[in-house]
Amino acid sequence: MNQTYVDDSLALHTDLYELNMIYTHWKKGNHDKNAVFELYYRENPFGMGYTIFAGLERVVQYISDIHFNESDIAYLREEQNYPEDFLKYLSEWKFRGTIRSFKEGEVAFANEPLIQVEGPLIDCQLIETALLNIVNFQTLIATKAAQIKTAAGDDPVMEFGARRAQELDAALWGARATYIGGCDSTSNTRAAKVFGMPVSGTHAHALVQAYRDEYQAFKAYAETHKNCVFLVDTYHTIDSGVPNAIRVAKEMGDKINFVGVRLDSGDLSYLSKRVRQQLDEAGFPDAKIFVSNDLDAETILNLKMQGAKIDVWGVGTKMITAYDQPALGAVYKIVSVEGNDGDMHHTLKLTANVAKISTPGKKQVWRIRSYNDTKPEGDYVALSDERPDKLEELYMFHPQYTYINKTLNDFSARPLLHDIVVDGELVYDLPSLKEIKAYAKESLSEQWDEHKRLLNPEPYPVDLSQKLYDAKVETIKLFKKISKSPATENNALF
Amino acid sequence: MNQTYVDDSLALHTDLYELNMIYTHWKKGNHDKNAVFELYYRENPFGMGYTIFAGLERVVQYISDIHFNESDIAYLREEQNYPEDFLKYLSEWKFRGTIRSFKEGEVAFANEPLIQVEGPLIDCQLIETALLNIVNFQTLIATKAAQIKTAAGDDPVMEFGARRAQELDAALWGARATYIGGCDSTSNTRAAKVFGMPVSGTHAHALVQAYRDEYQAFKAYAETHKNCVFLVDTYHTIDSGVPNAIRVAKEMGDKINFVGVRLDSGDLSYLSKRVRQQLDEAGFPDAKIFVSNDLDAETILNLKMQGAKIDVWGVGTKMITAYDQPALGAVYKIVSVEGNDGDMHHTLKLTANVAKISTPGKKQVWRIRSYNDTKPEGDYVALSDERPDKLEELYMFHPQYTYINKTLNDFSARPLLHDIVVDGELVYDLPSLKEIKAYAKESLSEQWDEHKRLLNPEPYPVDLSQKLYDAKVETIKLFKKISKSPATENNALF
Repeated sequence: MNQTYVDDSLALHTDLYELNMIYTHWKKGNHDKNAVFELYYRENPFGMGYTIFAGLERVVQYISDIHFNESDIAYLREEQNYPEDFLKYLSEWKFRGTIRSFKEGEVAFANEPLIQVEGPLIDCQLIETALLNIVNFQTLIATKAAQIKTAAGDDPVMEFGARRAQELDAALWGARATYIGGCDSTSNTRAAKVFGMPVSGTHAHALVQAYRDEYQAFKAYAETHKNCVFLVDTYHTIDSGVPNAIRVAKEMGDKINFVGVRLDSGDLSYLSKRVRQQLDEAGFPDAKIFVSNDLDAETILNLKMQGAKIDVWGVGTKMITAYDQPALGAVYKIVSVEGNDGDMHHTLKLTANVAKISTPGKKQVWRIRSYNDTKPEGDYVALSDERPDKLEELYMFHPQYTYINKTLNDFSARPLLHDIVVDGELVYDLPSLKEIKAYAKESLSEQWDEHKRLLNPEPYPVDLSQKLYDAKVETIKLFKKISKSPATENNALF
Repeated sequence: MNQTYVDDSLALHTDLYELNMIYTHWKKGNHDKNAVFELYYRENPFGMGYTIFAGLERVVQYISDIHFNESDIAYLREEQNYPEDFLKYLSEWKFRGTIRSFKEGEVAFANEPLIQVEGPLIDCQLIETALLNIVNFQTLIATKAAQIKTAAGDDPVMEFGARRAQELDAALWGARATYIGGCDSTSNTRAAKVFGMPVSGTHAHALVQAYRDEYQAFKAYAETHKNCVFLVDTYHTIDSGVPNAIRVAKEMGDKINFVGVRLDSGDLSYLSKRVRQQLDEAGFPDAKIFVSNDLDAETILNLKMQGAKIDVWGVGTKMITAYDQPALGAVYKIVSVEGNDGDMHHTLKLTANVAKISTPGKKQVWRIRSYNDTKPEGDYVALSDERPDKLEELYMFHPQYTYINKTLNDFSARPLLHDIVVDGELVYDLPSLKEIKAYAKESLSEQWDEHKRLLNPEPYPVDLSQKLYDAKVETIKLFKKISKSPATENNALF
């Protein structure tokens, strides 16, 4: 560790280019110009039809505390050579912006803003990297958990991934995200402590190996714990593990609660059936079979298809790293900015890849339900000054294939972006984790099964309002013109 | 956040089962029995032939500070119902073990112990989860960086991944790991501050979008920064971005250092060639072309094959998440334990999967070089009391295909596990990050190219000593016997 600068602040947990831009804006006197940035992702992960939004609590934690410590200022002075007046400005800076966000646990979709940050240009710019770092991961993992929980059906799923998580924060906040996404418990005791989550786990192979004698190991465990799940595959599941577990369970009788046995290797389908038989024949029909070993949604579906007798699923590596797609790819784009004229102007990034052209303007996302149906019709992304909830009739159309459209007459519209921080002050009561988990369940349960299935889900409509669509088309035209305008023409907003 | 228990300690950053086992050992009076655990992984990642070991500094940080805080004890009392005498024991507990480890930056291979922990059984057990959590990630990312750097050859590689990293720690420690593995800089300013790494970055699309006029944006940047790399793809790279960059560079003349331009989208092969031509024709043959956009080793190799005119590579998502294999899968196994007889006993985990049977015994790893050659012959894993460096003749053989063997007469043997912490006290001077990076380069440079190539590398021999091999065979036999022994026979070590 470089002893010169202590790690006591997150203000520099940002890409250097953010600081470079902030310096340009400050030096040019544009730092307090109002701007709006939005965070969104372009494609639902894992071939799924949705995500579960997560990360807001950590974002609030970050925003509430962000400031440049002495160590940051010293670093920027000595290593980045910023001038003293700028450093003085930074040392006194605090976040003054407004943050609107989806609630944690809300079902979310591609190409709609999940977080919107409005405020002084440099405040919005500085927090980009950390916001993405947090939300990209936590939303990804909550969604991965929802996928695995969907595969497991009503069976409990335990999160076991700490040892394979990508460093400590991922183990901690990842455990929380899996709980939001539907998991029932974590093995990570720190996560259980700080988030108030259920924790689960019994013993490892190391206990059996330390005793060497499996029966004595189980016996010692049973003499020191009321609830017992014995790990039965250290030597031989069928010949040794299960018989020893049964022997101890019988000997201990009512002194313990023989919850069941865990299998961590081998042919889980075959073994679970054999073990079920052994337990039943021994008079333990209620003893459950726990399994683990590189499980993923696909493995769980297949084991179920084979009629495996598995009651509880322990899922580690594949869930905590989102192994099949370890990044969500959310981006954070400026959509509106105040010019020297004092007006707000739409902005976007042109690109040869049409799908990557951003949608300009400060927005609100509305979840539309028609009254003659209990399920959502789609999300309706509108400019923030539009009020679709006040309309008699709502015209919805596909944002690319505009000839796909429908008109609703009898509908409700629920806004999804909520005020969290206003002008730098937290105005939102963070719900408890249990409330967030319940909210995720509710948000998922209102969706059509067709959008929730794991393979080839029906795409959920995320439509633009006519006004927003027109604004996008106009802005694209304008920016194409600007990019081809003669060098002598000044199109600058500042 | 659950306000009941504050997050002020890492003692509970462990799976619950570790605590359950510790309680059993403590209650049964076995907690101070000596044990040896070893950390290793079973397969080199990404189809590569090696890894770069990383994570030791963070492990030392964790070990140096680990203790049960009041919040931990309160949680264990109130939520886990442990008895007061055990809680008192934990509250006074400090780590008393010995840790031996590879140096950070050392080239490492599958199936050899990278870290060895020896000491009281419960001390070894408690730290399992955190050690794996740290080393699994950091070694994976250092290795991924080595892969990407190999593809890039002599070109600089900049790490750009913070926004896609799996939460904050992964962005921070991941940046450090990529530097060890060969990257030249990071975009993460916090990592640069706390680890003393080079940091790089200029501006984002947001700067151009805020100004709207690309020329004015570049101009403003150039007026506020000496070194300029202009991002040229906000509107149109060829028609607008590069001409504006050139215009500003010409206008600013010696007032700036026109380092080059960055491309972040589009056909990087085609565009880089066109841009090279534009820059050369404008009289800037030294201006460099930086590229980014979901780059990975494979993309870099292909762009090079196409003759793309790229000077500097910015790599984000694919490196910081190890996208193609986001978990290393290292495990931590007990290999030796003190019985009631006071002797140390070999132990292993039997399994139907032969490759997964662990190798028992406390070990040392020796890197063998024969004098008539400058390159390593292989690694020689021996019991810790063996001294292959004192032998006249060394017999090396494949640990599965034992008929593949060789005898060396003129060789050196360098031990790879070094004392880091002895009886709870740090005895190792942690090298600086620059020293670690240099060490990694040296450790890699001594290897044959055949083991280092990215596709189908020649497997590097990781052999067992005859004594260790015999011990493994004997222990397997013994454990098979124990697992089939009559229930009446007590084979317990405690």
